[in-house]
Amino acid sequence: MKMYDLITKKKLGQVLSKDEIEFMVQGYSDNEIPDYQMSAMLMAIYFKGMNEQEATDLTLEMVSSGEVLTIDDDYLVDKHSTGGVADTTSLIVVPILAAAGCKVAKMSGRGLGHTGGTIDKLESFHGFNTEISNEKFLKQLGEIGVAIIGQTKNLAPVDKKIYALRDVTATVNSIPLIASSIMAKKLASGAKTIILDVKCGKGAFMSTLDEARELAYTMFKIGKRANRNMVAIISDMNHPLGMAIGNTLEVIDSIKVLDGKYVPRLSELCETIVVKTLVACKKAKNYNEAKDIYQNILTTKKGLDKFKELIIAQGGDGSYFEDFSKFDKALFESNILADKSGYIANIDALSLGKVAMDLGAGRVKKDDVIDLAAGIILKYHINEKVKKGEILATLYSNRTIDKRLIDKMKESISISKSKNSEELIYEIIK
Amino acid sequence: MKMYDLITKKKLGQVLSKDEIEFMVQGYSDNEIPDYQMSAMLMAIYFKGMNEQEATDLTLEMVSSGEVLTIDDDYLVDKHSTGGVADTTSLIVVPILAAAGCKVAKMSGRGLGHTGGTIDKLESFHGFNTEISNEKFLKQLGEIGVAIIGQTKNLAPVDKKIYALRDVTATVNSIPLIASSIMAKKLASGAKTIILDVKCGKGAFMSTLDEARELAYTMFKIGKRANRNMVAIISDMNHPLGMAIGNTLEVIDSIKVLDGKYVPRLSELCETIVVKTLVACKKAKNYNEAKDIYQNILTTKKGLDKFKELIIAQGGDGSYFEDFSKFDKALFESNILADKSGYIANIDALSLGKVAMDLGAGRVKKDDVIDLAAGIILKYHINEKVKKGEILATLYSNRTIDKRLIDKMKESISISKSKNSEELIYEIIK
Repeated sequence: MKMYDLITKKKLGQVLSKDEIEFMVQGYSDNEIPDYQMSAMLMAIYFKGMNEQEATDLTLEMVSSGEVLTIDDDYLVDKHSTGGVADTTSLIVVPILAAAGCKVAKMSGRGLGHTGGTIDKLESFHGFNTEISNEKFLKQLGEIGVAIIGQTKNLAPVDKKIYALRDVTATVNSIPLIASSIMAKKLASGAKTIILDVKCGKGAFMSTLDEARELAYTMFKIGKRANRNMVAIISDMNHPLGMAIGNTLEVIDSIKVLDGKYVPRLSELCETIVVKTLVACKKAKNYNEAKDIYQNILTTKKGLDKFKELIIAQGGDGSYFEDFSKFDKALFESNILADKSGYIANIDALSLGKVAMDLGAGRVKKDDVIDLAAGIILKYHINEKVKKGEILATLYSNRTIDKRLIDKMKESISISKSKNSEELIYEIIK
Repeated sequence: MKMYDLITKKKLGQVLSKDEIEFMVQGYSDNEIPDYQMSAMLMAIYFKGMNEQEATDLTLEMVSSGEVLTIDDDYLVDKHSTGGVADTTSLIVVPILAAAGCKVAKMSGRGLGHTGGTIDKLESFHGFNTEISNEKFLKQLGEIGVAIIGQTKNLAPVDKKIYALRDVTATVNSIPLIASSIMAKKLASGAKTIILDVKCGKGAFMSTLDEARELAYTMFKIGKRANRNMVAIISDMNHPLGMAIGNTLEVIDSIKVLDGKYVPRLSELCETIVVKTLVACKKAKNYNEAKDIYQNILTTKKGLDKFKELIIAQGGDGSYFEDFSKFDKALFESNILADKSGYIANIDALSLGKVAMDLGAGRVKKDDVIDLAAGIILKYHINEKVKKGEILATLYSNRTIDKRLIDKMKESISISKSKNSEELIYEIIK
């Protein structure tokens, strides 16, 4: 078999067989196939795509390039979001699922973008540590049902090699390549049930519903073909999800939801994710039972307790839960006032993400240092009524907040005489 | 400027500017742009193409990556064929143009394929040598108007680097890349008038007229934008061009044409090429004058004399012209007989090329040794009448000729009750 012939096949839009994909992935993993052939192949895949079977074969080959976690528990669940603004669902959903009796063994990253990743956010608790051994990780998972670890190099290592090549050859935005990269890590981490939250809209990687649907279906089907319980939700990212953008600010927002407070949009999506997961992994017989479990966990604050248990188990300071003033605070803050009365017609998620980044909440480059306290708190969400002069939002940063950013923030929120149409969940694939 | 951004632009089908192409070609030439980015770009070009200006900019950048020959002669002409079966036009056209007062400074290759390149063919004359110094090359060109040299490493060297990468990444068959690669070498060699013979059909690289036309127009326009006199002919390669396939056999066929004999198809194409070139470079005022010059050269055998002069000037044994038995002969020959009477309806050029290769006339790999005496002589050409039992063709080889090859040869020639439509020249662009 020759890589040249495989490139030719894909270039002509033909389907690669399992053996051919195995040859390609293993050859690349073993440095027998050079980067220049792989990058030509990736560009051909960008143009010609892959069918479900090819994407599945690619995913499974990447899985078998490294270690596979085998945690023998029917209720082992995992959740993945393609990333959005004010999306702190993981911090809410993970402890609730653990409180419901699921096992959540989460590998999280730091990532680039308008805020840090789950690990960055959790480091808002002084002492919290995800650099734990596999043994401790598994032991903690058995004891409290939840553990969070940084991404290990041993899960699907060839995915990292391929991703690094995509990153420098403009071949990142290919749906089968995105889907297989995400799913390889999810499958390698052993979860029996995987719930995907694919964001769609101006503030997301997938800006149109068609693209989001294609990505969601591709990942869903890869998971199905690999015998996992799958749910994929396509949710809105034209507007920010919750009220907080920024690492510590999102942690505080998630504690509020776990404490039973209702946060527009965020609470609704969390409920949907939890309910669908409980049904998919068979912790609940049906929708109503799952909803009761969710409500009960909120009422009894068992989710909040589980969150605290997780933080303490991994070295974090649990006293923050009782005293939010212990979280780092930003030196500077600046209020954005409504310049007229009306309904909040639009909050531009993409634009807010950029403001948050400029405030210091995210990373542009891998080694940028995040300002955990930086970010934005929205006081009103979409379609809520506001009066001229009221505070619309507050910006937080340890840098001085210049007028340009305030103006940009103002432009991101528009006020109108009438309500706007607003959707949160476009589609659920199950 | 970043190569990543240029790949993205091309991937999205956008046009690269002159500066961007310069950045890309120089960066690749200087090893500042890695192979893996260049191969992703080449695949994006394969899918999205290049417009005329981009292809011209690419060509000129490749030209300026190396030496440019400056021979100050208005009648300096060059001819390029994209390669076909029984295509020995160069051996005929080059001496005729020189006899007509043009200067033909020809760089030729050895090449891979069903026969060798022009250099291989000319080595049928014992002692003929193309490894000559630039000084001798230019001196000979001044004295006798024609000289043939092997391709130097100094003309458009980055083209060789890009071609080598295309060759292993399945990105050879992109029309702007083919066109710029050919034209870079032609422009660097300094010819004022360039005549292109683009082959079209089953036995050619461009199998459809649309593809051939696109390649022809692309090269034509690159040449025009570089201020050269250009002619592009699109000629048939469904059927072989002449009656001989194989290095020495083609030399003998070309001598026949220069000696005034009419060889079907081959003679007609040579006349067209010469006539169009003479008009384009202004050696002739018009078609009729050019045709008279051509006929006169054939009648007076000045083309044949020029060919002999060339061979002797570069160390070849000129006595072969008087005694063809001096050419190496194959140990084995085998006749193909007509199994019925009728008209020759089809001679499959592609299939004949493969038979010639199997007889030893061509190279599969760069370092294969060519059997100069091997090949095929056709006794009848397309639409000629043949009787059952007559010899259709003879195979020559220094290997034993097995039955499989004879059968394959038989299948390549079909005989029918009626004549078939036959075209030689599809289009002339000028």
